[in-house]
Amino acid sequence: MNTPVIEFFWDPASPYTWLAATQIGALATRTGATVSWRPFVLGKVFEATGNRAPATVAAKAKYLFKDLGRWAALYNQPLNFPKVFPVNSMTALRMACAANEAGEGGRFALAVMRAYWVDGVDISQPDALVSAMTAAGFDGAALFEASQQQAIKDVLRANTDDAIKRGAFGAPTFFVGSTMFWGNDRLVLLEDALRPAAQG
Amino acid sequence: MNTPVIEFFWDPASPYTWLAATQIGALATRTGATVSWRPFVLGKVFEATGNRAPATVAAKAKYLFKDLGRWAALYNQPLNFPKVFPVNSMTALRMACAANEAGEGGRFALAVMRAYWVDGVDISQPDALVSAMTAAGFDGAALFEASQQQAIKDVLRANTDDAIKRGAFGAPTFFVGSTMFWGNDRLVLLEDALRPAAQG
Repeated sequence: MNTPVIEFFWDPASPYTWLAATQIGALATRTGATVSWRPFVLGKVFEATGNRAPATVAAKAKYLFKDLGRWAALYNQPLNFPKVFPVNSMTALRMACAANEAGEGGRFALAVMRAYWVDGVDISQPDALVSAMTAAGFDGAALFEASQQQAIKDVLRANTDDAIKRGAFGAPTFFVGSTMFWGNDRLVLLEDALRPAAQG
Repeated sequence: MNTPVIEFFWDPASPYTWLAATQIGALATRTGATVSWRPFVLGKVFEATGNRAPATVAAKAKYLFKDLGRWAALYNQPLNFPKVFPVNSMTALRMACAANEAGEGGRFALAVMRAYWVDGVDISQPDALVSAMTAAGFDGAALFEASQQQAIKDVLRANTDDAIKRGAFGAPTFFVGSTMFWGNDRLVLLEDALRPAAQG
């Protein structure tokens, strides 16, 4: 049986995506799967589906703020709510597509989400973003230059369109084949679905 | 240390509430807690907070329908999506308040949600509701009669107002003291929060 692939659609603007990203590597190891990191534009997904960010209901926003801290504590992972939120993550996502082409997609995803959700870097600002990625061991300037190319912009658009076409409406979104899972809180179901394959 | 109490705000109209209800007894046993079953009117909570049912986004509705089946399978519990949905659960909730007064709140909650989410009983219809509850071992007629009393209606309204005042915006909602948890998918966090108390 082939190694199952978890497609992980991610946008660094989403805190639950950061939380899930801290867990997906270990989950993949436990289930014998590999992770395909697919940057996509969450705002475009909201636009296309009529969904909206969860924090648009005041009582829910208040709760979710606490909820994020509880998940971070459960996972023993850092999460510092950034001053700049929501954030324009377009350049970061394009750089992530360039990093994917260089075979560094997973490492870049974790690094850019850590920059935003732990270190408070304003990733909407190219200078801050490039510096943070350079500090994390990437050639930030080269990735930024690549992110300005039409071919890379097209990859990001194609990823987003693909996710929408297959039923995505939020983030993080995972696919195993045609089976979709949405949300950090569905990692338990994702793992449950992968278990028979891992044992097969 | 006193036994911790899990207040479980529930409305049988919510499928995730049924799923959580099937798990809460075992969770309480594991953590040394007791469950206080508190019927409340989810529609009023949506009205008060500006929240809306998750299924109002088409792509999300399609996904959640599958998601419910996955949780049911994970829990090894039955769930048959009812023909009548959404359902008016007001009479069922008032009967639940009457059952609470008789010390049968938990058993009633599980029975009425099973009637709707497993057996497909249209619980908006008093005759069907009373029959189902009588078949489940309650004095259905007496509970229905009690449900028409103003004092019972007031209990349900007070429960709903209490939940809204304390920050609820959906169902199921759990409180341990002033700490709120929302959703079947947060049982893991509820249990995590109760663990130190259970060990104390």
